Amino acid sequence: MDREISPAVIKRMPRYYRYLEDLVEAKVERISSNELSEQMHVTASQIRQDLSNFGGFGQQGYGYNVKNLHDEIGKILGLDEMHNIIIIGAGNMGTAIANYVRFEGLSFTVTGIFDVSPDKIGTAICGQKVKSMDELSDFVANNHVDIAALTLPRDNAVTVADELITIGIKAIWNFAHVDLTVPEDVVVQNVHLSDSLMQLSFKISK
Amino acid sequence: MDREISPAVIKRMPRYYRYLEDLVEAKVERISSNELSEQMHVTASQIRQDLSNFGGFGQQGYGYNVKNLHDEIGKILGLDEMHNIIIIGAGNMGTAIANYVRFEGLSFTVTGIFDVSPDKIGTAICGQKVKSMDELSDFVANNHVDIAALTLPRDNAVTVADELITIGIKAIWNFAHVDLTVPEDVVVQNVHLSDSLMQLSFKISK
Repeated sequence: MDREISPAVIKRMPRYYRYLEDLVEAKVERISSNELSEQMHVTASQIRQDLSNFGGFGQQGYGYNVKNLHDEIGKILGLDEMHNIIIIGAGNMGTAIANYVRFEGLSFTVTGIFDVSPDKIGTAICGQKVKSMDELSDFVANNHVDIAALTLPRDNAVTVADELITIGIKAIWNFAHVDLTVPEDVVVQNVHLSDSLMQLSFKISK
Repeated sequence: MDREISPAVIKRMPRYYRYLEDLVEAKVERISSNELSEQMHVTASQIRQDLSNFGGFGQQGYGYNVKNLHDEIGKILGLDEMHNIIIIGAGNMGTAIANYVRFEGLSFTVTGIFDVSPDKIGTAICGQKVKSMDELSDFVANNHVDIAALTLPRDNAVTVADELITIGIKAIWNFAHVDLTVPEDVVVQNVHLSDSLMQLSFKISK
C-alpha cells in the first residue's frame, strides 16, 4: 500500500471491521453502503469514500461482498498475521489486558508478562508465569516480539519505555498516564483512561 | 458555558490539564504558550486558540498563570465536583478500573460494583463488596450515581446498558466491544481496546 491514508480513516477502519465481523457471523453475504450506513450511523458517502482508499471493493448495483470486504480490511489492519505481545506490569490492568487479548481471539497473542515485584514474579496470569524484568532483555533478544503493552504507573513508564526502545521494541501500547517521547521508527498507541474519563466528565457537567 | 466547543478541543483539554498538573506539582508559577507548546508538541498558536475558547487566561508578556489555568480547565472539565461511579462487571477489567479510579485520585469515586456471578458477589474489590445485579435498580434509586462503567463481555453489554438507561443512568463509560445506541440525553464514552489494538497493528504492518 503506497498511498498515504489519513489518521481519521485509520481510526474508522477497526469499526468497519467490527461491524463486518458481526455480519459474517450472521452469514450475511452482501450489503449496500446504504444498509451499512444505517447500521453504523455513518453516511453512505463517507463509507464509499473510506473504502475507496483501499481499492474498489464495492460493485454498482450489488454492494459489498461482506466476507471479501471483511477479509480485505483485516489484511489492511494487519490481522492476517499473528502479533506477539508482551505485557510490562502484572497488576490489575496488565491482567485485564492479558485476559482481554486472549478472550477477543484476534490476531494477537500474549507471549510474556513481566513485573518487578517479587510478589508477582512466578505467579500465573492466563497460564503464563510472570517473569522478572531482569529477564526482559534476554527474552526480547531470543523471541520475536511485535508489541509491548505498558501497564505501569506513570512514574516508571518513561524509564521502562526507554528500556524497551533500547532493546529493539518498535510498538508500544501505552496504558500509562503519560505521553511517551519516542524515536520516529517507534509507534505508540495510547489508551489514556483518565483523558477518557475527563471527557465524559466534561460532557455531563455542561 | 453557552458557546459550543468542538469535539477536537474537548479531546485536547484533558491533555492540557495533565501537563498543567505536572507543572503545578513542580511549583512552576507561569508559562508562556511557547514553552507549553514545546513540552506538549502542539503549536503555540493551537494552544492560544484552544484556550481562547474558554476566555482570556493568558496575558501578553506574562503568559499563563499555571495554577489559575489548571484550576479553570479543571472546572471546565467538571473536576471541581466529585462524580460517583458504579462499575458493572467485577472481572479483571472492572477490578482494574476500580483500582485505577482510586489510584488516580481525580474527582471520581467508585461507590458500587455489581456482577451477576455468585462467585464474585460478596467478594471485596478495593474495599467495596461486590453487589448482585439484582440490587442495581434499588441502589441507583437510593444513591446519586453520575457514571456507570460497563466492563462486561459484549454479549451482555447491550442489555445491561438498556437497563441502566431505564433506571436513569445518564453517562456510560463503555469498555464493552460494541457500540451502544442510547437516547439523546445519555452520554457514552467508549474505550474500545480492540479498535486501539487494530490501529496499532495497522501502523506496524505498513
